[in-house]
Amino acid sequence: MDGIPEAEFPLRTFLDFSIDGGPDGEPGTAVAVLDVDERHLNPNGIVHGGVVFTLVDTAMGRATLSVLDEGCICASIEVSVRYLRPVGGGRLVATATVLRAGRRIVHLEGAVHVEGDDRPAAVLQGSFAVIEA
Amino acid sequence: MDGIPEAEFPLRTFLDFSIDGGPDGEPGTAVAVLDVDERHLNPNGIVHGGVVFTLVDTAMGRATLSVLDEGCICASIEVSVRYLRPVGGGRLVATATVLRAGRRIVHLEGAVHVEGDDRPAAVLQGSFAVIEA
Amino acid sequence: MDGIPEAEFPLRTFLDFSIDGGPDGEPGTAVAVLDVDERHLNPNGIVHGGVVFTLVDTAMGRATLSVLDEGCICASIEVSVRYLRPVGGGRLVATATVLRAGRRIVHLEGAVHVEGDDRPAAVLQGSFAVIEA
Amino acid sequence: MDGIPEAEFPLRTFLDFSIDGGPDGEPGTAVAVLDVDERHLNPNGIVHGGVVFTLVDTAMGRATLSVLDEGCICASIEVSVRYLRPVGGGRLVATATVLRAGRRIVHLEGAVHVEGDDRPAAVLQGSFAVIEA
Repeated sequence: MDGIPEAEFPLRTFLDFSIDGGPDGEPGTAVAVLDVDERHLNPNGIVHGGVVFTLVDTAMGRATLSVLDEGCICASIEVSVRYLRPVGGGRLVATATVLRAGRRIVHLEGAVHVEGDDRPAAVLQGSFAVIEA
Repeated sequence: MDGIPEAEFPLRTFLDFSIDGGPDGEPGTAVAVLDVDERHLNPNGIVHGGVVFTLVDTAMGRATLSVLDEGCICASIEVSVRYLRPVGGGRLVATATVLRAGRRIVHLEGAVHVEGDDRPAAVLQGSFAVIEA
Repeated sequence: MDGIPEAEFPLRTFLDFSIDGGPDGEPGTAVAVLDVDERHLNPNGIVHGGVVFTLVDTAMGRATLSVLDEGCICASIEVSVRYLRPVGGGRLVATATVLRAGRRIVHLEGAVHVEGDDRPAAVLQGSFAVIEA
Repeated sequence: MDGIPEAEFPLRTFLDFSIDGGPDGEPGTAVAVLDVDERHLNPNGIVHGGVVFTLVDTAMGRATLSVLDEGCICASIEVSVRYLRPVGGGRLVATATVLRAGRRIVHLEGAVHVEGDDRPAAVLQGSFAVIEA
């Protein structure tokens, strides 16, 4: 919704999630959506922490791109993830929002919800470096 | 090497990494090894942050299990990852080490190196909750 | 506002900040307020990161206490702070909000604003362990 | 030991800790030392998390300065602290070590020990931005 083409890469194809700008078309947000199935689970039958992380990290990258000048790319400096509730199934909705877009560093927050449950399953914060083309 | 069976799960099968106890057979460490190929890369041609995270998160879980009483499992509370150098290829070696094994919480540190380079590509710290069977 | 007595301790007395339950009297939030003066600054003339951290960490502890059974105390497991904008002066308002209160672990988020500026100067997330009396 | 003058600021004077380059005179490390007394304790009688944080954050800043070109300063992007063991007294020794010194971002790790105990009381990781003069 923000004119950024959907990037395909193998891990995303395997996990099978969509990624798009925020629903309001405003820059600075992104949403990733994933329908949980057996491929996302760890041996304990809950969604693997790496799936939750990848979903939000990708959304954070997309949200960061939406506030950068054309041709710039970004790279994660640090991301922290906090797991609040285990997820066994359902539709995961990951949101990422830019908190501050500096010239060289962009800070974001993110969260993952199971659709229909307004309590977060995980929350994240991250900081990305801006790399000029 | 520590008697814990290798857990298979779809994300691990897709990423295709090995996971084992530390080389010294001591509890409290684990090592995951992944040979980078095209499936691990993001659209910029470097290893996706979610791959680095998944590798160490899995090793942290394994290292935690190695210090727990039989029948206990563990769940991530929080994990933080810091990306020091982009990785474009090679063999990734992820290590996880227990820093403190409490009765209810286990703290760990982790790192990812490209084999042959003693400078870390990423460093992590994490805390896991102990769940009694 | 939530019946928890204001705890005095020397670092708080030195930094001279107030700490109270959230304005709505609901459990799960706390607010700390500090008027910046020379004692809070680092050698570069901006508020020291340790001051920002202490303010929110104290508010997080207070917010956690407000959701615990009487007699329980809490201890920080991990806290992460992200500095968005340097602060040179003004009134710092730190808020802490419980995101999830589990039986053994409480997760929170926090932020620091300079009064009159709705953009955060710092954001934090933290996890606390519940210790039964 | 690395030619950087000891910076005085009020919070440091109140907490009363020393700060110096690492014992080997090599750039990229710093050590802060604090003798615990009543002023460092929280209402539960253990060293306040903000004291532990301030000690390492200051050492991280000092270690970062030791690898920068003259005239550059640094500012915290993000710091994460993990509390492994409560501290009730003794001499706190905080160490900070540069993990990677990039042109724009410096990553560090830190730890706090009670002198005489080789198990860490707290571990930290942080990332600092380099600001050209």
